[in-house]
Amino acid sequence: MGGKAARACGKQAPMAKIDLQPPRGTRDFYPEDMRVRSWLFDLFRQVARLYAFEEVDAPIVEHAELFIRKAGEEIVEQLYHFTLHDRHLALRSEMTPSIARMVMARAGGLRLPLRWFAITQNWRYERTTRGRRREHYQWNMDIWGERGVGAEAELISAITLALERLGLGPADVKIRVNSRALLEETLREGILRNRPEAFEPLCVAIDKLSKIGPEAVCELLCNPAGAVRLAPGEARNVVELLGARSLEEAAAGAPPGSQALEELRQLFQLLEEYGCREWVVFDASVVRGLAYYTGIVFEAYDTQGKLRAICGGGRYDRLLESMGGAAIPAVGFGFGDAVILELLADRGLLPARPRDLHGVVFAFGDAERPAAIALAKRLRRAGHSIELVLGHGKLRRVLQDADRAGAERVYLIGPDEAARGEVKVRNLRTGEEETLPL
Amino acid sequence: MGGKAARACGKQAPMAKIDLQPPRGTRDFYPEDMRVRSWLFDLFRQVARLYAFEEVDAPIVEHAELFIRKAGEEIVEQLYHFTLHDRHLALRSEMTPSIARMVMARAGGLRLPLRWFAITQNWRYERTTRGRRREHYQWNMDIWGERGVGAEAELISAITLALERLGLGPADVKIRVNSRALLEETLREGILRNRPEAFEPLCVAIDKLSKIGPEAVCELLCNPAGAVRLAPGEARNVVELLGARSLEEAAAGAPPGSQALEELRQLFQLLEEYGCREWVVFDASVVRGLAYYTGIVFEAYDTQGKLRAICGGGRYDRLLESMGGAAIPAVGFGFGDAVILELLADRGLLPARPRDLHGVVFAFGDAERPAAIALAKRLRRAGHSIELVLGHGKLRRVLQDADRAGAERVYLIGPDEAARGEVKVRNLRTGEEETLPL
Repeated sequence: MGGKAARACGKQAPMAKIDLQPPRGTRDFYPEDMRVRSWLFDLFRQVARLYAFEEVDAPIVEHAELFIRKAGEEIVEQLYHFTLHDRHLALRSEMTPSIARMVMARAGGLRLPLRWFAITQNWRYERTTRGRRREHYQWNMDIWGERGVGAEAELISAITLALERLGLGPADVKIRVNSRALLEETLREGILRNRPEAFEPLCVAIDKLSKIGPEAVCELLCNPAGAVRLAPGEARNVVELLGARSLEEAAAGAPPGSQALEELRQLFQLLEEYGCREWVVFDASVVRGLAYYTGIVFEAYDTQGKLRAICGGGRYDRLLESMGGAAIPAVGFGFGDAVILELLADRGLLPARPRDLHGVVFAFGDAERPAAIALAKRLRRAGHSIELVLGHGKLRRVLQDADRAGAERVYLIGPDEAARGEVKVRNLRTGEEETLPL
Repeated sequence: MGGKAARACGKQAPMAKIDLQPPRGTRDFYPEDMRVRSWLFDLFRQVARLYAFEEVDAPIVEHAELFIRKAGEEIVEQLYHFTLHDRHLALRSEMTPSIARMVMARAGGLRLPLRWFAITQNWRYERTTRGRRREHYQWNMDIWGERGVGAEAELISAITLALERLGLGPADVKIRVNSRALLEETLREGILRNRPEAFEPLCVAIDKLSKIGPEAVCELLCNPAGAVRLAPGEARNVVELLGARSLEEAAAGAPPGSQALEELRQLFQLLEEYGCREWVVFDASVVRGLAYYTGIVFEAYDTQGKLRAICGGGRYDRLLESMGGAAIPAVGFGFGDAVILELLADRGLLPARPRDLHGVVFAFGDAERPAAIALAKRLRRAGHSIELVLGHGKLRRVLQDADRAGAERVYLIGPDEAARGEVKVRNLRTGEEETLPL
């Protein structure tokens, strides 16, 4: 639209100058950021497709009650929740409860096992520090309806394929595996005797070990106002158990005939068969910070130990029951976009993602415009990404912009070309020029 | 994980049975819904790519002030906003203000014109009725920094390409085009004289014409407590202007030498050159319900007149200024997922979207499992989508599930096959079976 008519329209009072930054802890995605994000998500999607997982999604706003549990989890304390028109709502903090709700809503009609994946944005209200935002994206893969550790093996193998495709190897990333069931078996006849309900908050507390250290964890476990309430000696024994770094060490503390230990052995054997055993280590200190895990748990870390967990997951066989649904075993993981991108950037593994721009079409004047439009249309219908110069640009500026945008070719139509029904095509990579019939 | 260890863990008190439905007005996307959504979004992305638009994104939660304007727009009244930790936040109701904020934040460093697109989820808090939800997805394409109607032509042509690829033609959908600048020019020396600020709320009011009828619009325009405050005769004259259905009719009311009329003529000429003129009609009643439009506006409707607008857009040359930024002309459209999917469903044009599943790999017993895992790995690395049967299923059930899932092949490894280093491959489409070396 021409300037004059537009400018003549009623002037509105300008707003107070708005905040140019997105809300604290959130991100804008400019084209160059979006290309990296799309590249990463496409890679997640490809891996999920190879493993025959189906994509699902749920609303980013849910009933707050879906996310609220009472075991002292950080993720619940940091829930982004609000009341709107008398409804208590929350921005999704994690995808698993929504997936569980969806499974529950169609429990009778879904053929198990389900293999579902999702790539979702999750929110948590927390202090923002370097690399720690209030929203992040997460790739989730979940298997519902399979009791055996074959499900865990399948998921861990998918993670290693994704890491491999990102350019990482077992020397860069290790997946630390443990079993909450093993810990529970070990404590069952001791401190959990007569009070099994202490196990969930106990796991949530010892998950903080690497962040706050053994002393502080002991304090949490002994807190007389807390949910666990151990004696100091008991707490020290628990923390000591977490030091095991091999199945053999862990076996020493486990009760005879431990089923959890047998499952861990099976899992390591399966990972051998998948060819990804070298990515995985046993680590008794991994318990995960979410209350609902019941069995195998795992977390991937960079081997240099610089960053937070790249991804994490585990088995949560009783989540659906705890929500009032049928008992369906489940296992899943979440793989965020933040830490992996930090790691790839650190290692120089973030690929350059140039624009996918085939060509720029430029008419020298209005007379050549119909020919330029027709050419752009033909090239687009042939599948090429084509920028049509809209205004009356100068050739030099057009060439400069085309080059900067990474265009492969420029199609130039001047009066001579138009008269002869031709177009001049300049290849910006090679500098070659040719004249083609329109 | 085995059942026993899991079951023995501490029982938590079940929550009150949770609500199985997502919050009112929102949707779950089960795999079959997600396949349709991905198909539609991929098509939007392909068209945007052909037109050399770059994808961007912004947070779904923004400062509420970004969306709040005072012209009585429905979209502002229905803002999903809330206060959290003393911050007034809102779920994005439309993408344009965020895009404007992003342009403004980097105004100096961006090379114009920009061609940006986004596919975003937008929220509005309103009564839910059939096909009217509180969230929807919208494909946005915007051109920033181009004054001429070449930008409008480019966008309208992209919309027609998308419609065409969805299987629709000009007999199914018409794009109604008008110019707010033409209306403004026509009223400038009359009712807008000395009060140009009445123009925005006037447009917002007359946008309701098709919904509430001419009488109610006249009442709005005459409301002594409103922002427009016309005399009854003036209001009737305005509504009468909206009856024009051809450029010739509109020209009769326009002032001599009307620039807005000239731009409309140029636009129709350009659309002729793009080969999409037959998709477009002039319609003086189209003004759009958003306050910020300044020039050409357009809306696409099904020709049977059954549904709400499929998409809509226009020129908004002064939005950035009104936000306190530089004057950068802009034009864009939003194309929602709701109405187009209704229309495609009505016309039987929604394609069947089966799962993309190449094969199912099944080991008869534990002894054959390593061979099955190795085969699944090889097939996946060759790019095939492979489901590996994890438990100890029965062959009959496995075949049934594979068929139901739409798998092309089933790879069977029993003791005989494993012993000979072979796999039996059954093609579920043809029923043929062959034996191949592992």
